[in-house]
Amino acid sequence: MQVSILGGGGFLGRKLAARLARDGAIGGRPVTALHLFDLHPPPVPDAAPFPVRALAGDLLDPAALAAAMPPGTGVVFHLAAVVSAAAEADFDLGMRVNLDGTRAVLDRCRALVATGEAPPRVVFTSSVASFSGGQDGVIPADGRQLPANSYGVQKAMGELLLGDASRRGFLDAVCLRLPTVLVRPGRPNRAASSFVSAILREPLLDLPATLPVPEDFALWLCSPRRAMDWLLHAAALDSASLGLDRGVNPPGLTARVSDMLGALERVAGPAARARVQPAPDPAVAAIVSGWPAAFDPARALSLGFAPQEPLEEILRAFVADDLDATRAERAADRPPAG
Amino acid sequence: MQVSILGGGGFLGRKLAARLARDGAIGGRPVTALHLFDLHPPPVPDAAPFPVRALAGDLLDPAALAAAMPPGTGVVFHLAAVVSAAAEADFDLGMRVNLDGTRAVLDRCRALVATGEAPPRVVFTSSVASFSGGQDGVIPADGRQLPANSYGVQKAMGELLLGDASRRGFLDAVCLRLPTVLVRPGRPNRAASSFVSAILREPLLDLPATLPVPEDFALWLCSPRRAMDWLLHAAALDSASLGLDRGVNPPGLTARVSDMLGALERVAGPAARARVQPAPDPAVAAIVSGWPAAFDPARALSLGFAPQEPLEEILRAFVADDLDATRAERAADRPPAG
Repeated sequence: MQVSILGGGGFLGRKLAARLARDGAIGGRPVTALHLFDLHPPPVPDAAPFPVRALAGDLLDPAALAAAMPPGTGVVFHLAAVVSAAAEADFDLGMRVNLDGTRAVLDRCRALVATGEAPPRVVFTSSVASFSGGQDGVIPADGRQLPANSYGVQKAMGELLLGDASRRGFLDAVCLRLPTVLVRPGRPNRAASSFVSAILREPLLDLPATLPVPEDFALWLCSPRRAMDWLLHAAALDSASLGLDRGVNPPGLTARVSDMLGALERVAGPAARARVQPAPDPAVAAIVSGWPAAFDPARALSLGFAPQEPLEEILRAFVADDLDATRAERAADRPPAG
Repeated sequence: MQVSILGGGGFLGRKLAARLARDGAIGGRPVTALHLFDLHPPPVPDAAPFPVRALAGDLLDPAALAAAMPPGTGVVFHLAAVVSAAAEADFDLGMRVNLDGTRAVLDRCRALVATGEAPPRVVFTSSVASFSGGQDGVIPADGRQLPANSYGVQKAMGELLLGDASRRGFLDAVCLRLPTVLVRPGRPNRAASSFVSAILREPLLDLPATLPVPEDFALWLCSPRRAMDWLLHAAALDSASLGLDRGVNPPGLTARVSDMLGALERVAGPAARARVQPAPDPAVAAIVSGWPAAFDPARALSLGFAPQEPLEEILRAFVADDLDATRAERAADRPPAG
């Protein structure tokens, strides 16, 4: 089975490529080739037991996308996106990548199906940002997506489109509305949720961090490890069990910022926690305050998605998986300007 | 205030133009010009107290759309669509008109706003087909749109897009999810719901009609008169009362086919009812059986949308408004081929 990762150069894409290289298979089916695609050639994971191609191109370039999803493609992880704050800052860019890009993936799958291939499984990363409702209440499995940000709107539109394409047999989608993923390595990015990782990662690097929301602010969270488990489970799932509803709210974790800082203190001591200082940011708060902090996980659990591990385990996983590499990257970086 | 009707040549567009010509105003604000736009030049209503332009063009032709929505446009009725069975038969055509067309309307509004104009009110006709759930249950005002047909998917995507565009100030949308409108004049069209009007209209013309679904099949209905009332109310509504949720389920009427045939018998006698013969059609049933037959009207009523009049009044309105014209059109037609 050939596998494509669109957005293969991003945080989740690189983790996923490494995981596939380690596992060699998805749901018991061997991976025979891995095609990594991004705007720049993605890094190739070490010691993969199958050939790996690193391709650079634009999702909206049909020839480039066809190269990234060649004949024989069985699973496509469509992770390519413009993140929340960037899509809010630039409406056209968000529409282009988040909506038109998804439509391009549909078109490519349809072209493969037209040649007699089975509809490829498309695992699409949607987001908690496709909901509103904020801090109150628990979103049911069939909760309405009424997003209060352009990124969430574009993700919800992509889900509708991929659901229809699945019904029509152009592809076979599973749309995972990922919680906020923490702890992200690297530097802060333009996701409005970037602070969620920063307030844990930066203190673990002995660096200060700022908190743009109050400590009692609650979030719906998952770890990179669990996100990988979910992506792979979604890739192998029998989609007949989903019926018309291709959207899944995987079983994340509700935690307040104070819970996260408490876990930081237990893992790294009070000095680490003391590195986080409040710095209210109304622009960030305006986006993230609409995101729900709790979902009913029953459907996802019944579909076999693994529940989220607790906060301290998430922090220890970051220390084990990413801290040294993050520290090395920072050391190699030139100091940030300004 | 200048007004545009996109899809001005269709059934609802022509009724709306005639109503505007009669009223001369929307919500007390005089109409100063009316721009009718469709693939072919729409008919111009009689005796309008303002200039009326009939324009032909493609929604996706920016120059044509700019002519149909000139500077000074205050209200746009966006009724242009590929109907349900046609969008199911031709995915690309449905996407082009129903999604890309709506995006073109957004782009044009945004261009007007960029010149300093107020965001135009866009009244978008969405549909009961954007929901699933079928015969069971009552859809709440914030019910989830999980459509089981491409037309409904494209309408739901259009709603998301116009909602986001409203939040961003590119336009000011109200999305009306119209029930099945009956009694439609003219001939059957490619809407899967075409039979709903046919089983009343054809017998009133002394013609036979076929019923593709069982008599106990229930539908969510409205009359053309009430649809006009709702479109005009939506055009004048204070959108602040809608909050983030620009979608409205107007207060239609739940009726079984047997209720409709009973009303037909009361209005036109048993011979009329006897002209309707069962002819089960699985393709039509597959589409319409997913559409909900009942909605909670409380929010729409609180927003000032008028409740639907009863079935017999709908039939009598068709006889008063449209029967003679429909009969004359049929008489002028050549006999259908085949």
